Amino acid sequence: MTTSDRYLAFANSAVGSRLANALGLPRPVPLERMPCVDNTDAMADARAMPVSLAVVGGAGDAPLLPDLARELHRLGMPSLAHAERLDWISLANQAGTMSGRFNPSEGVRPKALLFDASAIASTDDLSTLYTFFHDTLACLDRCARVLVLGVPPTLASTPQASVAQRALEGFVRSLAKELKRGATAQLLYVSPQARASLHSTLRFFLSPRAAYVSGQAITLQAPVFEPPPIQDRRPLAGQVAVVTGAARGIGEAIATVLAHDGAHVVCVDIAAAQGPLDAVASRLEGSALTCDIAAPEAGAALLAHLAKQAPHGLDILVHNAGITRDKTLVRMSEAQWQSVLDINVGAPQRLNQALLDAGVLRANSRIVGVASISGIAGNRGQTNYAASKAAVIGMVEAWSPVLAERQISINAVAPGFIETQMTAAVPFAIREAGRRMNSLGQGGQPVDVAQAIAWLAHPASGALTGQVVRVCGQSLLGA
Amino acid sequence: MTTSDRYLAFANSAVGSRLANALGLPRPVPLERMPCVDNTDAMADARAMPVSLAVVGGAGDAPLLPDLARELHRLGMPSLAHAERLDWISLANQAGTMSGRFNPSEGVRPKALLFDASAIASTDDLSTLYTFFHDTLACLDRCARVLVLGVPPTLASTPQASVAQRALEGFVRSLAKELKRGATAQLLYVSPQARASLHSTLRFFLSPRAAYVSGQAITLQAPVFEPPPIQDRRPLAGQVAVVTGAARGIGEAIATVLAHDGAHVVCVDIAAAQGPLDAVASRLEGSALTCDIAAPEAGAALLAHLAKQAPHGLDILVHNAGITRDKTLVRMSEAQWQSVLDINVGAPQRLNQALLDAGVLRANSRIVGVASISGIAGNRGQTNYAASKAAVIGMVEAWSPVLAERQISINAVAPGFIETQMTAAVPFAIREAGRRMNSLGQGGQPVDVAQAIAWLAHPASGALTGQVVRVCGQSLLGA
Repeated sequence: MTTSDRYLAFANSAVGSRLANALGLPRPVPLERMPCVDNTDAMADARAMPVSLAVVGGAGDAPLLPDLARELHRLGMPSLAHAERLDWISLANQAGTMSGRFNPSEGVRPKALLFDASAIASTDDLSTLYTFFHDTLACLDRCARVLVLGVPPTLASTPQASVAQRALEGFVRSLAKELKRGATAQLLYVSPQARASLHSTLRFFLSPRAAYVSGQAITLQAPVFEPPPIQDRRPLAGQVAVVTGAARGIGEAIATVLAHDGAHVVCVDIAAAQGPLDAVASRLEGSALTCDIAAPEAGAALLAHLAKQAPHGLDILVHNAGITRDKTLVRMSEAQWQSVLDINVGAPQRLNQALLDAGVLRANSRIVGVASISGIAGNRGQTNYAASKAAVIGMVEAWSPVLAERQISINAVAPGFIETQMTAAVPFAIREAGRRMNSLGQGGQPVDVAQAIAWLAHPASGALTGQVVRVCGQSLLGA
Repeated sequence: MTTSDRYLAFANSAVGSRLANALGLPRPVPLERMPCVDNTDAMADARAMPVSLAVVGGAGDAPLLPDLARELHRLGMPSLAHAERLDWISLANQAGTMSGRFNPSEGVRPKALLFDASAIASTDDLSTLYTFFHDTLACLDRCARVLVLGVPPTLASTPQASVAQRALEGFVRSLAKELKRGATAQLLYVSPQARASLHSTLRFFLSPRAAYVSGQAITLQAPVFEPPPIQDRRPLAGQVAVVTGAARGIGEAIATVLAHDGAHVVCVDIAAAQGPLDAVASRLEGSALTCDIAAPEAGAALLAHLAKQAPHGLDILVHNAGITRDKTLVRMSEAQWQSVLDINVGAPQRLNQALLDAGVLRANSRIVGVASISGIAGNRGQTNYAASKAAVIGMVEAWSPVLAERQISINAVAPGFIETQMTAAVPFAIREAGRRMNSLGQGGQPVDVAQAIAWLAHPASGALTGQVVRVCGQSLLGA
């Protein structure tokens, strides 16, 4: 399913690493990630659990620390308290998880740094961030995770606090660019009403699932639906998911991960992909629907299929199918414009409407779109594609408040350079530039996009709606 | 005031342009820009006027066309109607400006393309954009301007319209990356209540003032103060502006442009810069205030100075002063953290508060901050600087609704690579990368930042508040 990054392999070989070092070449590390396996591999979840150490800090009252203690206990992750946050030890112990005092001279290699910045109320208070990370960063293990938790600037108690909370974004994005050896950093803006809904997000970021996500600012809002009892093994058991464009590439990976998590996956693709589509659906014990999503009858066809496969309604809808028809606008044909817009964003809007009107998308459903860095930053030769992917972002932004009233979430991922057959066909120099121009110095894998979608589609992710999460290794490109 | 970009000069020489062409090297063009001159050069404004041709198009009802006709008349800019928008001819004639029908085969070289996309109500309707730009782009003159006008997605009448309006952003950012020979493209989201407040924004973008701004999405909101009668010659006559860090570089350019526009400029800088500060203030017939803005007594010192120079209050406050102390966080000292945060964002917040409390910043005042691409995208070695500049963005976002109640606007510019003494000291390879990694293939000049600030500080810019405008030639870097 994935193409090979020969330079990554070379730079991590005995000879190659010495050569790369001597020449000052980039030395991307192989990321720890969950293998993209179907529901037959029972060990994959065990390998994905975060069993290593976290160091915890926080500013002021640090009101999220009790929530963090509860979640680290659920995840089975031991922790150490930074010297300025020794009250963490008793919080952790109360939650039933092991803790002690962090001492940098003891040679511990934490796998995570967690800092509750939500009580920071002025830019002066930001110095607590400096102290914590200055003390802890040098010890980090490879492929470690840095999470800074704040409060959404719009919900801060004063303008001064809002300014300081907004500052966290510049800090975390810079920190993510300083991290080495596969480590990543994110900012989680946690609304007060979202404190009970942290589980799925920490399960994602404190595991290899989030290997290729870095430098992101994510907001957890007042949940549009309440989390069910925690069930980390097969959290989607009994649920039905639709994935468009599921015959290969990223779509196949999405279907695989959702099936692994327990869902019955309805795999949708065009007639020309019938062979691989049937193979995927059969391997995943899901079902296949051959259907051109841009056709006027697509909604009815999907509804007819779901009437049999999902009589109780649909839980997850992933709009993955998409095409590119790259040309500069001057050379682009009207058909190239029209087909990209219609397949990438016309069809998803029509499918949403058909499923909403039929009551198939109902309370607790999750919709996930696939945007793109092009839709954020724009791209030469992609006026059509970038417009369609910006429209996917618009779909998330415009529909999230509307769907929240029906207790439905809508989010999107925005992939960067992902190693697929499509990128394997890109000329060498452009492919290499795309691969290296991000903080992790390598392309992502389809499974990285799939895991991010599985997180947004998790039944406990009701605090996530209206979000666009980049899966790009913190690409340099942006707006 | 500016450093030299020798490659730009070389690539535009007779030999160099042939060589660059043969080797496939970038060929940035010298941008048409206003010279950075003080109030003694009466011809500068005349040179900056947009006397060349615009081609106009629009989708559906195109409700902004009458407003565009009025403004093109005010700016003295003749126009042609696209074949699908021939109703423009009578609108333009009614407004008193010349117009005719655009015919690409006649060899006209329009200097501007203006498209009213505000009536686009679905992603299907976006094909009108394709038609207009497909027909017109190839004719564009050098250093031309593309403006797409939309309605803010949050104000669109339906979710479908909101999605389509959001798509414009991906389109315009891509188009800006396809334009050649110094041309730029922007998206203006015009709220219905802002239609009477388009003047200052079109005056900026349809002139050499906006030379280095491209790929931006700017929202014109319901104005926080009404525009005064139009006065394009010395629009700041009788007004008082404070510019911090005014002794050199970008600050000196800001002071110069504001003085050229008619303001009395209070030039503020530290004691170590006394000599150049006095020279600037004297040249601009403004006044000099030596003051460390981070000192506790800075607010009182500024108020005392203004009591003499601006007994009726302050009109414009530009927070330009800032420092960098670049180190990775592990190697950064606490003093390096603290000084950057305090000077770049602590001091501006304290000065705002002091001037607001004293009633010196009053109705119709404009505050402009200086953020940075680092504050948007983050930057390795700049956790302190990026946090401070993200905080400047936070200051704009948090304070704009609060200050709107007092009829005060607050905005920021975010410069990219600007040619100054500071960037001249950057090592060659990094400097060259910074210069070329944007759609215009070159660094900006201090005057480009200054002109953007003068636009935000224009007395008719009441529809602009809460905006962060990048002055970066559409740098590839972003979030």
